[in-house]
Amino acid sequence: MLKLYYAPGTCAVASHIALEEAGADYTTERLDFKTNQQNSPDYLAINPKGRVPSLVTDRGVLTETPAMLAYIAQVFPNAKLAPLDDVFALAQAQSFNSYLCSTVHVAHAHKLRGARWATEETSFADMKRMIPKSMGACFALIEQKMLRGPWVMGEQYTICDPYLYTLSLWLEGDGVDIKVTPKVADHFKRMSERPAVRKVTDTHKA
Amino acid sequence: MLKLYYAPGTCAVASHIALEEAGADYTTERLDFKTNQQNSPDYLAINPKGRVPSLVTDRGVLTETPAMLAYIAQVFPNAKLAPLDDVFALAQAQSFNSYLCSTVHVAHAHKLRGARWATEETSFADMKRMIPKSMGACFALIEQKMLRGPWVMGEQYTICDPYLYTLSLWLEGDGVDIKVTPKVADHFKRMSERPAVRKVTDTHKA
Ligand SMILES: N[C@@H](CCC(=O)N[C@@H](CS)C(=O)NCC(=O)O)C(=O)O
Ligand SMILES: N[C@@H](CCC(=O)N[C@@H](CS)C(=O)NCC(=O)O)C(=O)O
Repeated sequence: MLKLYYAPGTCAVASHIALEEAGADYTTERLDFKTNQQNSPDYLAINPKGRVPSLVTDRGVLTETPAMLAYIAQVFPNAKLAPLDDVFALAQAQSFNSYLCSTVHVAHAHKLRGARWATEETSFADMKRMIPKSMGACFALIEQKMLRGPWVMGEQYTICDPYLYTLSLWLEGDGVDIKVTPKVADHFKRMSERPAVRKVTDTHKA
Repeated sequence: MLKLYYAPGTCAVASHIALEEAGADYTTERLDFKTNQQNSPDYLAINPKGRVPSLVTDRGVLTETPAMLAYIAQVFPNAKLAPLDDVFALAQAQSFNSYLCSTVHVAHAHKLRGARWATEETSFADMKRMIPKSMGACFALIEQKMLRGPWVMGEQYTICDPYLYTLSLWLEGDGVDIKVTPKVADHFKRMSERPAVRKVTDTHKA
């Protein structure tokens, strides 16, 4: 049985939705970032990075959203969450997810996690001011060059979709108007209507 | 035929080594960052992100190191560069590469690419001061929790190895003494002795 460690509204939303879409048998455990539970000894024994998500499997713990999403797609092939039989298309999906992970998520993290990369309050304030611009630029590129529509990879719903949806959830708080990128806005709306997505977002809000 | 766009000493080293280890038939094209060639209209038509590496294939262009490495492993299965028949082990390899891409590479990028996330000279200086500490912490975690030895995944050489080697190449310039992490130092030395690695590093130095 799989077990997902998450904190509400974080990037863990993506893997949570993927598990739900896959029809996986899984449990969840919520971490409280306010009490810094991600850095408690108990949790560091599971994920020494002190981050979410983590997925506990029979074989051990997996971390890193792109790796977890691809794993879920491979373990539940009937859910058709990735183009598993097409090496190039699979690489394109992985490339999209790697961009979200290494560039888009990282841009967003400069709003509240500046202490990873600097020490001065003035630097943190400077980083915060940049968020609408850096996140806006990432989403403009997604709109113009990456999102094929209706889903990220085109006609087929894949593990790219919950991940894009998760980062789109952050736009309002990041001072980016989703309406500036109509394909992303349309994708966000279509995602919000899926039962799996509703179930997960309700859990995270509860 | 595959074509790799790279700039010397960048993260493109990883994919370049993987192509060489795979025995792939490929050509390369070098970009000059000094003249900002990565943002020339010609290159942006290939990779609108304005970054290296990019891999041109018969089906289109791939970007993002973790996706390209997994693609190379899948297209050249005889080279056994990834545990393709073991979904969990493959996810572990992808997780390692995602950590390098989203956390370790990103920590390093704060040395010279602060303008991605801030605007003030004082912030850039602050970010630069943090590099030895943030890169040191990443490599301490790799040493203690990730690198199994002799290779990243254990006995089998995989796509994780050229990627770790590539980021290890940056340590000296980042003010981190590789000897503090003896397993990483040992890995680096063993990598340096491989013919494919020598060939690629010689090309990048030329
Ligand atoms: N590259 C990782 C990043 C994980 C990550 O940074 N998660 C954030 C939440 S979105 C976190 O756990 N932050 C807690 C902290 O920084 O203390 C992934 O994609 O899974
Ligand atoms: N997430 C991308 C990052 C690519 C990247 O940032 N490459 C750097 C070189 S290491 C680059 O092209 N920088 C040029 C620039 O920022 O203008 C990957 O892993 O491939």
